[in-house]
Amino acid sequence: MNIAILGGTGDIGEGLALRFAADTSHEVLIGSRDAEKAATKAAEYTAELDGRGIDAGVSGFENAAATDRADVVVLAVPPYHVGDTVEAVADALDDGDVLVSPATGMKRDDDGFHYHKPGAGSVTRIAADAAPEKVAVVGAFHNLAAARLANLDAELEIDTLVVGDDDDAKRTVVDVAEGIVGLRALDAGGLANAPEIEGLTPLLINVASNNSGMRDLGIRFT
Amino acid sequence: MNIAILGGTGDIGEGLALRFAADTSHEVLIGSRDAEKAATKAAEYTAELDGRGIDAGVSGFENAAATDRADVVVLAVPPYHVGDTVEAVADALDDGDVLVSPATGMKRDDDGFHYHKPGAGSVTRIAADAAPEKVAVVGAFHNLAAARLANLDAELEIDTLVVGDDDDAKRTVVDVAEGIVGLRALDAGGLANAPEIEGLTPLLINVASNNSGMRDLGIRFT
Repeated sequence: MNIAILGGTGDIGEGLALRFAADTSHEVLIGSRDAEKAATKAAEYTAELDGRGIDAGVSGFENAAATDRADVVVLAVPPYHVGDTVEAVADALDDGDVLVSPATGMKRDDDGFHYHKPGAGSVTRIAADAAPEKVAVVGAFHNLAAARLANLDAELEIDTLVVGDDDDAKRTVVDVAEGIVGLRALDAGGLANAPEIEGLTPLLINVASNNSGMRDLGIRFT
Repeated sequence: MNIAILGGTGDIGEGLALRFAADTSHEVLIGSRDAEKAATKAAEYTAELDGRGIDAGVSGFENAAATDRADVVVLAVPPYHVGDTVEAVADALDDGDVLVSPATGMKRDDDGFHYHKPGAGSVTRIAADAAPEKVAVVGAFHNLAAARLANLDAELEIDTLVVGDDDDAKRTVVDVAEGIVGLRALDAGGLANAPEIEGLTPLLINVASNNSGMRDLGIRFT
């Protein structure tokens, strides 16, 4: 399967790209608004993988070109760019492609981070509202610490939660997610259940910052 | 230490009462608006503990009488009764007593459960707003499955998150919580961080209801 990671030059995009490339046989396509930046980052990731003896090429494209080549498209962009990004690549999406939304909105005050719930209900919902009707949107990968993903020496043994209204698309994303070693994908129901998942990310940051020895936290349902 | 569990006749109250009685040397006081109901439930819990060879008496009182005897007072009542309950027991609270808020507001739709954020910001904040100034309010025990707590054969090995603006009170609650075997208490910062913790409870229910073999879920930060 071909996986495009739009915003794949950012932290969470890098982590997902490295893990997919290292642990699965999927083709990983880095997307960016700037094709040259995408190609440069893809070369960096390929070099890091090569240094670990992993023969997995990662390639870079402008977002729409990456989307055109992909079956699964991960929107690893800041929450306020999710809607625009979906619109910018809409023509490159084929019937049956799956859009994946991992972004969450946060704001910070003196106490820590808080979930900034968008008017639409969730960032995942913003992606769904912007997507062409033929393309299913699935929420996943919200609560993963970018630095932990990007450090291929770090064990995961954590969960990611998957929400969506299209069961086939959700199953595709569960399969793709569980290709990453140590990542368990759990079904959290319909897309309307996204806010509580997006709200978990600021909580993970707050817990890490208030307990010594805890950083890059993940979560396990048990 | 004396721990009052107001609403201790309900599901989560029962679970906390049994665990505190079984695992710690704290005195457990069941509170209810109805003193007789509290006494009946306390006798039931004592009988269950006795059947397991645990010599730990649990006693029952009307809410204010339980509060009067307690150092730590857990508000194990429905979210819409939290403010009223605090007001009803306010005169029985001593300087230095700690109020603990475990309740969360939820609403349900076709997709599952959702966090129903109160206008005040969180249920924990409602408790803090209603409490006398001399009494610190700490949020804790939000994300524990009542049936799992109440089944003393069930292993926990899960976390509870503790929030509050008074560090001493928070430390007291962390110590009390970690008296329960298999429960780790993590500091999640100030009281303003309560909404994300309260929002975790509907998520746990949604994950349990969408994945076969999962029930009475807890969470582990790792």
